[in-house]
Amino acid sequence: VRLLLINPNTTTMVTDRVVRAAQERARPQTQVTGATGRFGARYITTRASAAVAGHAALDAYAEYGAKADVVGLACFGDPGLLALREVAHQPVVGMAEASCLLACTLGRRFAIVTGGERWGPMLEEFVAGLGLADRLAGVVTVRPTGGDIARDPDAAVAPLAAGCLSAVSERGADVVILGGAGLVGLAGRLADRVPVPVIDCVAALITACEAIGALGVKTPTVGTFAPPPAIESVGLSPSLSARLGA
Amino acid sequence: VRLLLINPNTTTMVTDRVVRAAQERARPQTQVTGATGRFGARYITTRASAAVAGHAALDAYAEYGAKADVVGLACFGDPGLLALREVAHQPVVGMAEASCLLACTLGRRFAIVTGGERWGPMLEEFVAGLGLADRLAGVVTVRPTGGDIARDPDAAVAPLAAGCLSAVSERGADVVILGGAGLVGLAGRLADRVPVPVIDCVAALITACEAIGALGVKTPTVGTFAPPPAIESVGLSPSLSARLGA
Amino acid sequence: VRLLLINPNTTTMVTDRVVRAAQERARPQTQVTGATGRFGARYITTRASAAVAGHAALDAYAEYGAKADVVGLACFGDPGLLALREVAHQPVVGMAEASCLLACTLGRRFAIVTGGERWGPMLEEFVAGLGLADRLAGVVTVRPTGGDIARDPDAAVAPLAAGCLSAVSERGADVVILGGAGLVGLAGRLADRVPVPVIDCVAALITACEAIGALGVKTPTVGTFAPPPAIESVGLSPSLSARLGA
Amino acid sequence: VRLLLINPNTTTMVTDRVVRAAQERARPQTQVTGATGRFGARYITTRASAAVAGHAALDAYAEYGAKADVVGLACFGDPGLLALREVAHQPVVGMAEASCLLACTLGRRFAIVTGGERWGPMLEEFVAGLGLADRLAGVVTVRPTGGDIARDPDAAVAPLAAGCLSAVSERGADVVILGGAGLVGLAGRLADRVPVPVIDCVAALITACEAIGALGVKTPTVGTFAPPPAIESVGLSPSLSARLGA
Amino acid sequence: VRLLLINPNTTTMVTDRVVRAAQERARPQTQVTGATGRFGARYITTRASAAVAGHAALDAYAEYGAKADVVGLACFGDPGLLALREVAHQPVVGMAEASCLLACTLGRRFAIVTGGERWGPMLEEFVAGLGLADRLAGVVTVRPTGGDIARDPDAAVAPLAAGCLSAVSERGADVVILGGAGLVGLAGRLADRVPVPVIDCVAALITACEAIGALGVKTPTVGTFAPPPAIESVGLSPSLSARLGA
Amino acid sequence: VRLLLINPNTTTMVTDRVVRAAQERARPQTQVTGATGRFGARYITTRASAAVAGHAALDAYAEYGAKADVVGLACFGDPGLLALREVAHQPVVGMAEASCLLACTLGRRFAIVTGGERWGPMLEEFVAGLGLADRLAGVVTVRPTGGDIARDPDAAVAPLAAGCLSAVSERGADVVILGGAGLVGLAGRLADRVPVPVIDCVAALITACEAIGALGVKTPTVGTFAPPPAIESVGLSPSLSARLGA
Repeated sequence: VRLLLINPNTTTMVTDRVVRAAQERARPQTQVTGATGRFGARYITTRASAAVAGHAALDAYAEYGAKADVVGLACFGDPGLLALREVAHQPVVGMAEASCLLACTLGRRFAIVTGGERWGPMLEEFVAGLGLADRLAGVVTVRPTGGDIARDPDAAVAPLAAGCLSAVSERGADVVILGGAGLVGLAGRLADRVPVPVIDCVAALITACEAIGALGVKTPTVGTFAPPPAIESVGLSPSLSARLGA
Repeated sequence: VRLLLINPNTTTMVTDRVVRAAQERARPQTQVTGATGRFGARYITTRASAAVAGHAALDAYAEYGAKADVVGLACFGDPGLLALREVAHQPVVGMAEASCLLACTLGRRFAIVTGGERWGPMLEEFVAGLGLADRLAGVVTVRPTGGDIARDPDAAVAPLAAGCLSAVSERGADVVILGGAGLVGLAGRLADRVPVPVIDCVAALITACEAIGALGVKTPTVGTFAPPPAIESVGLSPSLSARLGA
Repeated sequence: VRLLLINPNTTTMVTDRVVRAAQERARPQTQVTGATGRFGARYITTRASAAVAGHAALDAYAEYGAKADVVGLACFGDPGLLALREVAHQPVVGMAEASCLLACTLGRRFAIVTGGERWGPMLEEFVAGLGLADRLAGVVTVRPTGGDIARDPDAAVAPLAAGCLSAVSERGADVVILGGAGLVGLAGRLADRVPVPVIDCVAALITACEAIGALGVKTPTVGTFAPPPAIESVGLSPSLSARLGA
Repeated sequence: VRLLLINPNTTTMVTDRVVRAAQERARPQTQVTGATGRFGARYITTRASAAVAGHAALDAYAEYGAKADVVGLACFGDPGLLALREVAHQPVVGMAEASCLLACTLGRRFAIVTGGERWGPMLEEFVAGLGLADRLAGVVTVRPTGGDIARDPDAAVAPLAAGCLSAVSERGADVVILGGAGLVGLAGRLADRVPVPVIDCVAALITACEAIGALGVKTPTVGTFAPPPAIESVGLSPSLSARLGA
Repeated sequence: VRLLLINPNTTTMVTDRVVRAAQERARPQTQVTGATGRFGARYITTRASAAVAGHAALDAYAEYGAKADVVGLACFGDPGLLALREVAHQPVVGMAEASCLLACTLGRRFAIVTGGERWGPMLEEFVAGLGLADRLAGVVTVRPTGGDIARDPDAAVAPLAAGCLSAVSERGADVVILGGAGLVGLAGRLADRVPVPVIDCVAALITACEAIGALGVKTPTVGTFAPPPAIESVGLSPSLSARLGA
Repeated sequence: VRLLLINPNTTTMVTDRVVRAAQERARPQTQVTGATGRFGARYITTRASAAVAGHAALDAYAEYGAKADVVGLACFGDPGLLALREVAHQPVVGMAEASCLLACTLGRRFAIVTGGERWGPMLEEFVAGLGLADRLAGVVTVRPTGGDIARDPDAAVAPLAAGCLSAVSERGADVVILGGAGLVGLAGRLADRVPVPVIDCVAALITACEAIGALGVKTPTVGTFAPPPAIESVGLSPSLSARLGA
């Protein structure tokens, strides 16, 4: 299985870290590559940067997506997910989507703990868009952003642990998702401090991608994710223009 | 009131037509200008082109938005609406949003009739995101796309009328929205054939913008639409990069 | 545009104040008149008085509604709104309805701040009836009733400001509606103290009525708001009896 | 148990028929009396007549309610139910409410079959207001109104049977409510023709009232149904004015 | 009316107490008998014991159900309710179901107060399954379990009263259900301490069963509760095996 | 990873077939064993047989569950799932649960196609219990039951294909789940005839179990799935009695 992980922000260090974590987890026969957004925010922390990232994810897919068997969208919040699913000729899985769906088998109500307070309402809307609002215990944000946490993970352990405990005791979460590519690897450090399962969103993405790769499902030829009609465009990268115009 | 209409697709003819219709409708003291997306699809007809248009709307706002009192997002489906609302220092109104909210005062359940079948699920999701799913009688799409209709409105009158009648008799709509910038002006031609009110989405957008301009509401300083923190980015237009980095 | 504002409580002073505020806001060519309920509570503060007011609103419409182009129902809580919409041959807009729909374009979740604690559950049910429950951050009531506030607005500024701030900080409202005809004019005095937009419900009603008047929408000839069949009745005012029997 | 049945339309013949049916069903120690609306429609068939009936129900309660142990609101659609519950010092049960709640123990999804097509959306809104929208298979209306059926029940058997069968086979109802005071007694004539339970709404009301009377529950002293504050009013009947002003 | 009360836990003392309470409440002509589960938990306090009780309820019905006119499932939480309704040739009413539906006529939002904290999420799911989630103010559990309370009711009065008051003041309940067969008789002792109606779940069950018995409704011959096809099974009691294989 | 598949019906042939299919799919290091219900229906086709199966699943777990790392509940409809999750010391995944969650990453709205018409409402309730009602396009049942199909798969291909096509064209499904242990292996035979992805529920269960095994998540120590208190019981198998009493 050839797995392409698209990181729609523009920080290669995050992509590298996610790919490395994926390679450590993946089965031997899984081949993991990464792609980084070519434009947009260094770290996605707002609605505007997420909107740009939807475009950047499509652009990166157009450039690198041809040979993958499965595509993982490696930004928690999944900017551009449904558009990618429409355009891609292989299955596409989002990092937040995979985490939320996994959480549903581990508890009745899940919480998301993540960095950067602007993500709170954005993730509530995302979960509602999945149709899972009734299973969301809440989104708990800590002050340091995903970018801050990626730069100094050690400093984030304490506030994230406090966020997880608050999610359990105040919001009644049965399971907690640690959300954000920049938080990769921290779930393991928190597991002993939190009395419910803690999900590492990168691990959730990888296992979901491998599971779908193993199932060998095809993509639809009718409906909203069927191959779309060709579109005439201007001002896009040659690869994206070609992909949309095909 | 200075009103900026952002058309996030890349067809100036559509912008011009929307601005002209707005000027005909607007009060004398309202000053209407338009801005067209600098990149992306000629006509937005798919999820991917709508995702790119979210970026293009932000880009156009960064270039032209400084002096407006109210911003109207003149693409039915409102790509980038919430991101614009976050970034803008003035109120922002979306064309589909304004139409759906207006429809709620004219009937119990509204239908959207529009061009291009790929818009069906996209608009259902949009209305659900507004929280109005229970008031949506349905989305009825006709085969010609918005672009087709813009190029040959006369040919579209018959299928659109059939779509409106089906919305009323089969889905129980009390009011019908004719959705799409390219359909501007057609509501008037259909009114006599349809037994419930038919909303022209451009007119709905203009009156909503003028109403909000007249109310003189300020924008929030806390919450999800408060001015966001400055963001470091790469590869964006100078104006958008400056806007996000401010 | 001839705009009739129906105040379904029986206090002419409130009607006068609302009409005056409307005249100050309205465009020059808008002609505003008012009508006051002929029976019922001085101030509507309970379910029973609101139920009577539904009848009183219909009665006032039957007496004064013939020549209006648009009808505004000028009591926050909108008693009789759907019945008026059924009976009237012109569009009808409710004060709470217009405020809630306007709020939806200014924030994700709105709060209503109003006078009189009995209104809390009544307004929650009203918003649910609009289909907007998911966008309601909450209803915050202050102890003085609408009648108290109308008699002594100065004394109400402090508790209303506290209510608005509580709505923002404790319930996460992005926008606040100041609800109640008796509160007309207070939104402006609160705007500087509250970090999110504050909506004046009279202003919201007037702008909505003018917008709908400007659009020139017709009323439906089929469905739940089509002209109803004639009804035989007893004991009603001659005008209402005639209106229902027509 | 002294049971007062309020018929908020103005046709004494309907009240008499409902009271007689109640007396036949009631336990020996139950004492049934009826009260008819003093103003309003002969038969309630529209939103406007239902709004007036809310007032008429309160008025009748103020006149006749003092000595009852339980009050039944004997109009399917329950105009004024929540206002009555606020004002009354004894429990109040609505005819449609009692029928819908009973239906929930007899099947998963219930349908309402009733006379007069204007009732369709009104009853859908009523059921949604109860919070039971997910259990409603649908409302099926037949052309003759409740008044027509009361005048000529025999002629209504065939269309009502067809309506019930359609509710079962096309909408998947597990149980059918025959709605309307004017339809009293017809459920028994339909039971053999319909493959699921058919509920007589008068019987449902009586048994619910007797059950609540037998339980001896008190009414609340806090919350939305606690005794409301006294209200100053004008133009109401002496008894209602006194009741609201107490 | 012959009423069979099935207690699906295995403690005869609880059955006896429920039957006695029922006999005291029931009309003279009602004949009440009880049946106790033949296997499973002494007291149902967890998901696993409730799952077993679903089987035990069916088993008890197969053994004792033949001659009843109405069946009451006398365990709050109603394990096996829909399965019983499928299998039984007479109407079946659940104790929690009857209580929740009754509560809906006595207030807008009801709370359940019960013994044993594991019941909290289970009852939330039960109420959601009824379709009544929007009317549930909350489930308040006290530390002593239903079994503890059955053994020492006096000690439970204080914590239950505290739970009821918390349900009213903190969750806004208009009516409180005291849930649990082991709590039979305590509602009367709490009524004076609680400012809203307190429902005794055994009384609610009995009155609902008698009401349904009095209505004489038949059971359906189509749909999900029609008599099911015969099933081949192994390892079940002879009576249940025969009942399912019939 | 040691994976235990519990088949809560009593037909060993189905267990064997599911285990064999699992072994073919599983990674080399995954060790698959099966357990069959010791009592209950040969094939689960009704509410009553599903209720008994909830008990049988717990019983089988108590007998065979000690050494597994992950437990899969291999009956589509997942009887006893939440009770198992409460009792088990390792993660538990349900077959229908895993299929529905997987479907959510492959399309917007999924349909379930299965054998035996009684499953229709039962599966609708199951999906609603998952919180996924908004993503369910519908349940399409074919006349042959799961047992019939297990005995003669060839005869089922044509009706199942018709069911899948109807789910896509009439209900708008983007993805179809072929539900039922007895249908194992048929998804592959239908894939070419259906224009959207077809999910094999056994494959979905295995990949979900392996993914969760690979993640190494722990089980919670607080909340509704924490280890329950010991329960005294009678009449259960020694292993289940011991397991609940531990």
